[in-house]
Amino acid sequence: MTLITVDQALCARDGICRDVCPVGCIDMDRASGLPQETPDPACIACGHCVAACPHGALSNSQVDAAACLRQPTDLPGEASLRSLLLARRSVRAYRRKPVERSLLAELLETARRAPTASNSQHVHWIACADKDRVHEMAQLGARWMRAVGLRPRLVELWDKGRDVVMRGAPAFVGAWTPADYPWGAVDSSIALTYLELHAATAGLGACWAGLLTAAARQQPELRALLGLQDGQTLHGGLMLGWPRHAYRLVPPRREARVAWV
Amino acid sequence: MTLITVDQALCARDGICRDVCPVGCIDMDRASGLPQETPDPACIACGHCVAACPHGALSNSQVDAAACLRQPTDLPGEASLRSLLLARRSVRAYRRKPVERSLLAELLETARRAPTASNSQHVHWIACADKDRVHEMAQLGARWMRAVGLRPRLVELWDKGRDVVMRGAPAFVGAWTPADYPWGAVDSSIALTYLELHAATAGLGACWAGLLTAAARQQPELRALLGLQDGQTLHGGLMLGWPRHAYRLVPPRREARVAWV
Repeated sequence: MTLITVDQALCARDGICRDVCPVGCIDMDRASGLPQETPDPACIACGHCVAACPHGALSNSQVDAAACLRQPTDLPGEASLRSLLLARRSVRAYRRKPVERSLLAELLETARRAPTASNSQHVHWIACADKDRVHEMAQLGARWMRAVGLRPRLVELWDKGRDVVMRGAPAFVGAWTPADYPWGAVDSSIALTYLELHAATAGLGACWAGLLTAAARQQPELRALLGLQDGQTLHGGLMLGWPRHAYRLVPPRREARVAWV
Repeated sequence: MTLITVDQALCARDGICRDVCPVGCIDMDRASGLPQETPDPACIACGHCVAACPHGALSNSQVDAAACLRQPTDLPGEASLRSLLLARRSVRAYRRKPVERSLLAELLETARRAPTASNSQHVHWIACADKDRVHEMAQLGARWMRAVGLRPRLVELWDKGRDVVMRGAPAFVGAWTPADYPWGAVDSSIALTYLELHAATAGLGACWAGLLTAAARQQPELRALLGLQDGQTLHGGLMLGWPRHAYRLVPPRREARVAWV
């Protein structure tokens, strides 16, 4: 099968496609100077050979050049991005206003672009824009906490009517992968981080739903509600909603513990 | 021990501090309407009670209000942040220019602010701004790949002089946690994502060092070079450097697979 096709008239023989390929699918032909595919190529369809060529000289049968976007140029500056990363707070109190499903879909459009190990794209999503359904999740989470004896203080608060699991959030997004995929937690966490940051710029508040995630590893009713089958691990999730309160300050954190090698 | 102190003259009795506390350390006193700490508080020192109070009425003995920053306001807009998340590419070809240690330190200043489960802040860092040292890491990674029979095609390229492990990057940052900490992969991945995005706005290219990360789970010499002890798991790392090539396009990805519940 032909992996790459090179337009010889456009190709500048600069080797960029070879440089950017993660898996060594491309070598430069000594005689012609043109890129050629290597024997036994293991293309991961990352599309970088197509995306990096400044001349549009290369096609890849695994990657549709017409489906590529132009590289955006309206990027935030360093100070502004750093401000966002510092400003992002875990939001645990929400207004009554629902989160539209279409907005969650937009966030997922961003999150699906997050990097995954070897471009494997094993992350799958669970999304919910139904506040009552999110509350059902919280109930099952609290039931699990009581059963396993986790965080008795929070269970006590639950019994007093405080939703300490999903904080009354109107929406939820979770990420799962096949359980036997070794980079599932990493890939899911990167994608959820993308989603949370996009959400923050859309004015949404979010908080990592750690208790629910832990419960979804074990609680059969919760797994059923989330549609999780055997062999599927929920690696993380975010509760989402419109923040009820603004933050005035950024709390301190421990200094970075860095070993320079 | 006194956890919170409330300035009664400033307190608006609005319950915001109670609302934002993740663990239920604060209740409102029925008689006075003032926040009061609950018995057996399990404060996680997130500082949100201090940070969210619009009136500066609350102090927390675990959180130094003077060490808080003012909430930044120069945040990127939604379109601009989304552009960054789409524009970020895994960069695998670098200029010769070194990455200053001080720049890595700035990135780590951002990354240490990333959220961690229950504010546990278990992430530790390994950083390297020495290109030769990064190449040593790559050598040990390649040796491990050969020993375990991983990716023979890449090992073959290594033997031809192509650094397929660290791509000749001049810098590296890795994140580890105690192996028995259950959210290690999640917390490390969030923090590394913060770091990579900050790096991108600083003009740096990065790529997740998956092969090195896998090798660092097993290869004793690599573990020694990285300073990893028994019981410490490297969850991920980034190679970093100044990009040699620009990207013209954003390659397509699989559509998001979403189950709406």
